[in-house]
Amino acid sequence: MKDVDFCVIGGGFAGTTAALRLKQAGHSVTMLEARDRLGGRTFTETRPDGSWIDRGGAWVGPGQDRIQALMREYGVPAYKQYTGGEAMMLVDGKEYRYSGTIPWSMSPWVAMNLGAALLDLGHLCKTIPLDAPWTAEQAERWDRLTLEHWLNTHVVSKAAHELLEAALAGAYTSAGSEVSLLFALYQMASGGGPAFMLGVEDGAQDSRPVGGMGAVYRPMAAELGDAVLLSRPVHRIEQDVGGVTVHAVDHIVRARRAIVAVPLAIASQIHYEPMLPVDRSFLHQRMPSGAIIKTSVVYDEPFWRTAGLSGQSAAPGSPATITIDACTDTGRPGILCVITEGPVARRIGAFDTADRRHTILGELAERFGERARTPEDYIEQDWSTERYSGGGMLSHAPTGVLTQFGHALRPPCGRIHWAGTESSAVMCGWVDGAVRSGERAAHEVREYEMAGAAGPARS
Amino acid sequence: MKDVDFCVIGGGFAGTTAALRLKQAGHSVTMLEARDRLGGRTFTETRPDGSWIDRGGAWVGPGQDRIQALMREYGVPAYKQYTGGEAMMLVDGKEYRYSGTIPWSMSPWVAMNLGAALLDLGHLCKTIPLDAPWTAEQAERWDRLTLEHWLNTHVVSKAAHELLEAALAGAYTSAGSEVSLLFALYQMASGGGPAFMLGVEDGAQDSRPVGGMGAVYRPMAAELGDAVLLSRPVHRIEQDVGGVTVHAVDHIVRARRAIVAVPLAIASQIHYEPMLPVDRSFLHQRMPSGAIIKTSVVYDEPFWRTAGLSGQSAAPGSPATITIDACTDTGRPGILCVITEGPVARRIGAFDTADRRHTILGELAERFGERARTPEDYIEQDWSTERYSGGGMLSHAPTGVLTQFGHALRPPCGRIHWAGTESSAVMCGWVDGAVRSGERAAHEVREYEMAGAAGPARS
Repeated sequence: MKDVDFCVIGGGFAGTTAALRLKQAGHSVTMLEARDRLGGRTFTETRPDGSWIDRGGAWVGPGQDRIQALMREYGVPAYKQYTGGEAMMLVDGKEYRYSGTIPWSMSPWVAMNLGAALLDLGHLCKTIPLDAPWTAEQAERWDRLTLEHWLNTHVVSKAAHELLEAALAGAYTSAGSEVSLLFALYQMASGGGPAFMLGVEDGAQDSRPVGGMGAVYRPMAAELGDAVLLSRPVHRIEQDVGGVTVHAVDHIVRARRAIVAVPLAIASQIHYEPMLPVDRSFLHQRMPSGAIIKTSVVYDEPFWRTAGLSGQSAAPGSPATITIDACTDTGRPGILCVITEGPVARRIGAFDTADRRHTILGELAERFGERARTPEDYIEQDWSTERYSGGGMLSHAPTGVLTQFGHALRPPCGRIHWAGTESSAVMCGWVDGAVRSGERAAHEVREYEMAGAAGPARS
Repeated sequence: MKDVDFCVIGGGFAGTTAALRLKQAGHSVTMLEARDRLGGRTFTETRPDGSWIDRGGAWVGPGQDRIQALMREYGVPAYKQYTGGEAMMLVDGKEYRYSGTIPWSMSPWVAMNLGAALLDLGHLCKTIPLDAPWTAEQAERWDRLTLEHWLNTHVVSKAAHELLEAALAGAYTSAGSEVSLLFALYQMASGGGPAFMLGVEDGAQDSRPVGGMGAVYRPMAAELGDAVLLSRPVHRIEQDVGGVTVHAVDHIVRARRAIVAVPLAIASQIHYEPMLPVDRSFLHQRMPSGAIIKTSVVYDEPFWRTAGLSGQSAAPGSPATITIDACTDTGRPGILCVITEGPVARRIGAFDTADRRHTILGELAERFGERARTPEDYIEQDWSTERYSGGGMLSHAPTGVLTQFGHALRPPCGRIHWAGTESSAVMCGWVDGAVRSGERAAHEVREYEMAGAAGPARS
């Protein structure tokens, strides 16, 4: 039994940031991570040649100030996402090439539909109070409608509909029929609107840390030192008037307060004694994770660039739904990242490895030429089978959940505090939101301790 | 470590039936129940005077053949739900009295709206293939709409809307905005349609077992004898080519196959090794339980009967949303059952006990007279705080879940088989569905064993 001021459960960016800020403030802290690695839903693999692969969350963009502050703290520079050349859109058997975020070169009808929908969504986003989206004037109405229903009733062009479904529902890594319209609007609004979410330059895919996300979380962990314990899944948290007792495999931590920094479906697998208040434990049952496979395909050089292509492509419904240039700052080797989300990810996740590789490389060859078929390295990451993420990349709220249970996302339950990107009002769903949630939780536990605040909440 | 043919996890009607049928077929079996009692989401308490209270599932109706077969096996007679006198409806500040299921005595406008909506729903239900509701012609469309959206677009009268919302969404013990229209239609269809679901005489509330549900599950457990182990929450199930190893608190069972017979949100808290296939583990994240408080109020006699009232009342939004006569077959003492569901149940669940009692008795006094304020006994059961039910009474599917993941409800994952009322195509959500699922699972494990079928499923 180890005795510390605070115990953090989960070593993703939320937990690691919380633990770091607490240690920096002079507290003793233990961080328990279930896996044998840190990073949570980010996961950087360094290759023998020094290049790196981000198997999970990878990008940063303007407004994501807290992850960028961490990068500055550890001297990690950013480099711009490659956007030279043309992007490619494959819809309805046709291929369109374009520059920028929106494929205006598609038929005017499609482009008009796309533009109008993004404009509409942008306006709706502006009416959402980020701290409490369930208080939006139209909250009740939007929360009984699905994102899919909105797309069906607002986007007439089939191609525009498919594109938006892939881009928007895809972002939640679930079918659009699973996602509440209110939640989708809130999540987009928390990043500044749909243009930010979809955007590359000046958007959510603007830049990457040199060295990948690992270049940030590894030195954070180094600073935490022996406060970090790996391979310690937590199965039970007890709280009493004096503190919390956190039970992990082969390890027990006694602390004044705990910060649980794991996705909601994973928080649901911990046994809380006493039980959590009903609205919080019901929330744990109600925000599932989605499916995403991120495949990194490595070539000797980014040959698509010389062909005048950016490497970015979108093909709704295809096993290679989205591709994007994922080279390091040096541009060598050539790395293409393939993102497959939601229902398609679950479908190809069931293929055997060789079939899936064959399928993905076939798609790449069609888009970028035969050279794409023979990579030097092929690294796939299926987040659906990550036991301690429970899926990826973001937990979504189905209809009715934010208006009924959203109020329980952040407030502590007695001595148990909550972090994780899903609990961040700003940049909810991004790495930056995770960092913000960790800083907020670290601040919160210190404030509550100083105020000598309440014992365990009862259900 | 105990070595048996089959291990059943969960001692509600589904698990107890499965274990019983396996034992009767000559197999060795162990049933592990997390609580210190059996019955699951049924729970009968016998009072010192010999009367009984059903704190959970209570009724049987026509077509519920499998629970009735069990009643016959153990010599448990049924008695009719009391329906003499008038029922009461309190909507929009007005009180209506009526006989039968539908309050036709309300304004013709309201009655017409109610009747039309029930007729519509009945027609829609008929198009649902019970074995695979996700294959219904309109499945995709209905699964991206919520029950609440349907009520909003199909029921114009405010009073009719409120009544249907209380009656239909209430049945799922969650807000109508949380429930997929496809799931609601399927669940109603599995009982034969909305008339059955709402109905008392010849409906789902037609009769009760003499002695309560405990009069059925107790002799079943007695026949199982030392095959039943209480207070043994299961936290881990491993499967390999030869069988399963089930880890409970202070107990390990080795068996050829396991039957997991717990609600889906509870199944999500078990650690499966290897991981379950993605669609099944995603389903566990996606079918939450709702909130319900069932309060039994005991008087010396059913004084409402002599006043010409049936004891049945419905008051949407009120803490005593539904009341119903819950006397035993002898009619003495007088027992009124108060059912509070969904958002209202969560709201009053947070009151302290005395406030909640005061509120409920005040409602009863308004409806049934001052005598209601001074009961002899007052027994409340809040299913939201039952750790091993995770809520009550029925897990619902949010939008998009049945069409994406419904196919994973019944098929076994390697040597792990699934029971529970949610997995029954017929009478899904009722005790009868639980019994059917238990019998199906018992049949299934024997068939798979005889066929020498597959080892563990991989995710």
